Amino acid sequence: MAIYIALLHYPVYDRQERVTATALTTLDIHDVARLARTYGLKGFYVVTPLQSQQTLARRLIDHWVTGRGAAYNPTRMEALSLVRIADDLEAVVTGLEQEVGRKPKTVATTARRYAGSRSFGEIKKLLSKRGDAPYLILLGTGWGLTREAAEGADYLLEPIGGKEYNHLSVRTAAAIILDRLLGGVAR
Amino acid sequence: MAIYIALLHYPVYDRQERVTATALTTLDIHDVARLARTYGLKGFYVVTPLQSQQTLARRLIDHWVTGRGAAYNPTRMEALSLVRIADDLEAVVTGLEQEVGRKPKTVATTARRYAGSRSFGEIKKLLSKRGDAPYLILLGTGWGLTREAAEGADYLLEPIGGKEYNHLSVRTAAAIILDRLLGGVAR
Repeated sequence: MAIYIALLHYPVYDRQERVTATALTTLDIHDVARLARTYGLKGFYVVTPLQSQQTLARRLIDHWVTGRGAAYNPTRMEALSLVRIADDLEAVVTGLEQEVGRKPKTVATTARRYAGSRSFGEIKKLLSKRGDAPYLILLGTGWGLTREAAEGADYLLEPIGGKEYNHLSVRTAAAIILDRLLGGVAR
Repeated sequence: MAIYIALLHYPVYDRQERVTATALTTLDIHDVARLARTYGLKGFYVVTPLQSQQTLARRLIDHWVTGRGAAYNPTRMEALSLVRIADDLEAVVTGLEQEVGRKPKTVATTARRYAGSRSFGEIKKLLSKRGDAPYLILLGTGWGLTREAAEGADYLLEPIGGKEYNHLSVRTAAAIILDRLLGGVAR
C-alpha cells in the first residue's frame, strides 16, 4: 500500500495561536525527503499557498534533481525526486485520488492532545494492511496544524508524548513518527 | 542513571572520506537540544576544535539562555540550557568523570556497518539499568564518525538500517536513535 507525507505551511498556528502561513525551511525539505526515501514513501508534498515559497521550493528541488546538485550528491537527488509542491491539502487529496484511483485517507499528527486520537500501534496496524486506500500523513509547521485541520483528518495520531517537554522540531518529530509507524516494516 | 549526548564535528569523514572538522549547523544544536530535553538527557556536548565555531555556538546559546531569546521562547531556553561546548571527546569524558565521579561509557552511532556493533535492544537494556556508569552517546556530523572514533567507543550501536537508502541527516538520526533507546522509558 502506498504511503505519502505532506508538510503543511498552512493552516498552522503561530506562537500566539493565530492561524498563519509559515515560510519554508529548506532543511525541512531535505530532511523529510530523506526520511520519505528511507521509509519507502511514494511521495512528499510541500504544501504552501504562497507562490514565492513555491518558487523557492522548486528552485531547491531543481538544483538537486536535475541541476548541478544531482551529480554532486546522487543520494540527495534520489530523496528530493519524491518532492511535489501543492497549494493546499485539498489539491493534494484530489491529485492523489486522480493518480492512484482512490481517495487517500489522511492521518494528522500533532503535539497537542485532542479527543479521539489513535495510538501509534493502531495507526501502524492500519498502514500495514495491504490493498487499502493510500494513506497521507500530515505534518504541521510553525506551532502545529490548526485544530480544524487536525480534527478534519480521517485519523488523528496521538502526540509523540514527551511527558514534561513537548517541543520538538517538525523534522525530528517526522523522524520519530515515521520510525514508529514504519520502522519495523520491511520495505 | 545519567545519559549525555555529544555531537562531534571532529573527527568525522567528509564526502571523499577524508578526516575533517565540519562547520556548525545551528539547527542541529536546536534540534538535538530539544531532543535531549524531551528524552531526559543530562547534557548535550557540542564538540569542535575550531575556536570560531565555539564562539558561534556560545553566542547562540547565550542568546536563548540568558539573552533576549529566553523571554521570547522559554521552552527553547530550557532545551539550550543543556548545551555544553568542548574541544574534543577526551575533554568531554574527563570533564564528565570529574563531575559525576565515574568515567562515562561511550556509545558510538554510525550509519556504516562495523563488526561488533550492538543492537538497539542491547543498548536500550544497558541504558535502562540504574546505578550504572553514566553513558555518553556519540553522534558524528558530516559523513559520520571516523572508523577509529566509532571503534574506539565502549559500545558501537548498529545503524538505523534503511535497507535501500541510508542517508539521514544527523538531526533526524538522533531523533530516531533516542526514541528507540529511550522512548519507552518513563522519565
